[in-house]
Amino acid sequence: MSTDIEIEGFVLGRYFEQWEEEGIAVGLEVDEIILEEEESEYQEISIFKSKTFGNVLVIDEVIQCTERDEFPYHEMMAHLPLFSHPNPEKVLIIGGGDGGAIREIAKHPLVKEIHQCELDKFVIDTAKKYLPKSAIGYSSPKLTIHLEDGIKFINRYSEEFDVIITDCSDYDLDSSRPFYEQDYYKKVNKALKPNGIICSLAECMFTDFEFMKTFTKTIRSVFPVVRYAYGIYIPGYIGGQCGFLVATKDKTKVLEEPVRQLTDEDIKDMNLRYYNTATHKACFALPQYVKEAIEKYYF
Amino acid sequence: MSTDIEIEGFVLGRYFEQWEEEGIAVGLEVDEIILEEEESEYQEISIFKSKTFGNVLVIDEVIQCTERDEFPYHEMMAHLPLFSHPNPEKVLIIGGGDGGAIREIAKHPLVKEIHQCELDKFVIDTAKKYLPKSAIGYSSPKLTIHLEDGIKFINRYSEEFDVIITDCSDYDLDSSRPFYEQDYYKKVNKALKPNGIICSLAECMFTDFEFMKTFTKTIRSVFPVVRYAYGIYIPGYIGGQCGFLVATKDKTKVLEEPVRQLTDEDIKDMNLRYYNTATHKACFALPQYVKEAIEKYYF
Repeated sequence: MSTDIEIEGFVLGRYFEQWEEEGIAVGLEVDEIILEEEESEYQEISIFKSKTFGNVLVIDEVIQCTERDEFPYHEMMAHLPLFSHPNPEKVLIIGGGDGGAIREIAKHPLVKEIHQCELDKFVIDTAKKYLPKSAIGYSSPKLTIHLEDGIKFINRYSEEFDVIITDCSDYDLDSSRPFYEQDYYKKVNKALKPNGIICSLAECMFTDFEFMKTFTKTIRSVFPVVRYAYGIYIPGYIGGQCGFLVATKDKTKVLEEPVRQLTDEDIKDMNLRYYNTATHKACFALPQYVKEAIEKYYF
Repeated sequence: MSTDIEIEGFVLGRYFEQWEEEGIAVGLEVDEIILEEEESEYQEISIFKSKTFGNVLVIDEVIQCTERDEFPYHEMMAHLPLFSHPNPEKVLIIGGGDGGAIREIAKHPLVKEIHQCELDKFVIDTAKKYLPKSAIGYSSPKLTIHLEDGIKFINRYSEEFDVIITDCSDYDLDSSRPFYEQDYYKKVNKALKPNGIICSLAECMFTDFEFMKTFTKTIRSVFPVVRYAYGIYIPGYIGGQCGFLVATKDKTKVLEEPVRQLTDEDIKDMNLRYYNTATHKACFALPQYVKEAIEKYYF
């Protein structure tokens, strides 16, 4: 019944486990290692085929996405801001190298241009090879890829984008940390049109509770309206949940109310498996302890 | 960086991991083992002090609850049916040996009698010693404990209870399986008053997807109204989420709409940390793939 295994790494045909200082871990059973700790110019990238979650992308020892449970993440990250915006024509995504967010953004008929700024071409190439269901986003004719640092890129723009999505890795990785700081959000604010909306990964409301509070405060120091969307369930992440912060420069905006309601037919046409008009509204109805912790930044 | 550890068991000062056939695991870091695989008359019970989740109760190698994240489970399990019921005076809980559900039920001023039917006295005694925050439920003067098999117990009653909560372990354990079957729910139906409401653990909508569908169908074969409440987020469970099936004999009932709305003061008085009127409504707004899988049993 008891078996020796390795933690924080691969054992072929066995288990991959990601432990946090928080004293909690998630584990996925490994069927086959496809890429083992390949060093790109910027980070360490692994891909394994899991027993039940399809191919799994790991960057710097953190699970980024699995083929089986990426859809709640990418659908909610893209559609919360896009269905809150009256006319999202020009969308920027910072990061999101796997392509899943692009795939979702491209489903919106109102969107005319999608710009992706991703520093690491190796992530894109890896996704195209091993995560084809996400990387199908790269086939969108609306897409322009900018291979450069997101902060330098965004600094060049003023009132340019309708929606800006920040799809980086965990805040505790050195490479991602700048994308969770006030300085970055000042640049995002400047690059956003006056009625623009942003959406950023805001981690788990339970295991990253302190971070979530700080990050809400940070974004609120730059944007007049901010909301935490919590109902995104992703079993392959530690804690099984992540949230997004959605914010806007438009002081009158009610982010909880989508401006376009979806019929069953719309949902079918857009091939949505998680997002619908009801989940849009519901994901802002915070559990009491989260509400008490961050609602003070709302008003 | 790599360290040998044992899985599916304890290593003092290290890790407890629970793996599922689904190829996914959750792990909690162990500070101290308090009870190691003690055999009660019915099951194998362990308690460990975790690094960050407080004391953890494990029955037959499945995490039942942790001190830190039991509140979403017990609050939603109790308050969803109780706030949906116009006058819940007599409540029965089957299982729930840790006492957390009793603690929540006892907060309702309308409740006059709480009956708990728990087979295993050892679980109750263990909870009283090591899970005092849950076991405080046992101090309620409204409580009567019945130490016997839940199915035999419930079979003796007709139209007796306003609310019946089934708080058993996983459906794949031999001891719990009968509590997920039609025969049991026929007895529950008989024991329930005509406008009665039930609430039962219905597992994770992702990792237990097939079970969740079957179980919804089973309950719907006995009750005219059934709804799956999904927004219960528990990091210490595999998948990080569990749901409850709420059902009623009252064909006209809208379970999504609580009959009593809570003010901020009510919430404070009842010491609620997860449940509020908004989460009650929101937890029934299903993600699209869950809606498509089970909504056919709703109408």
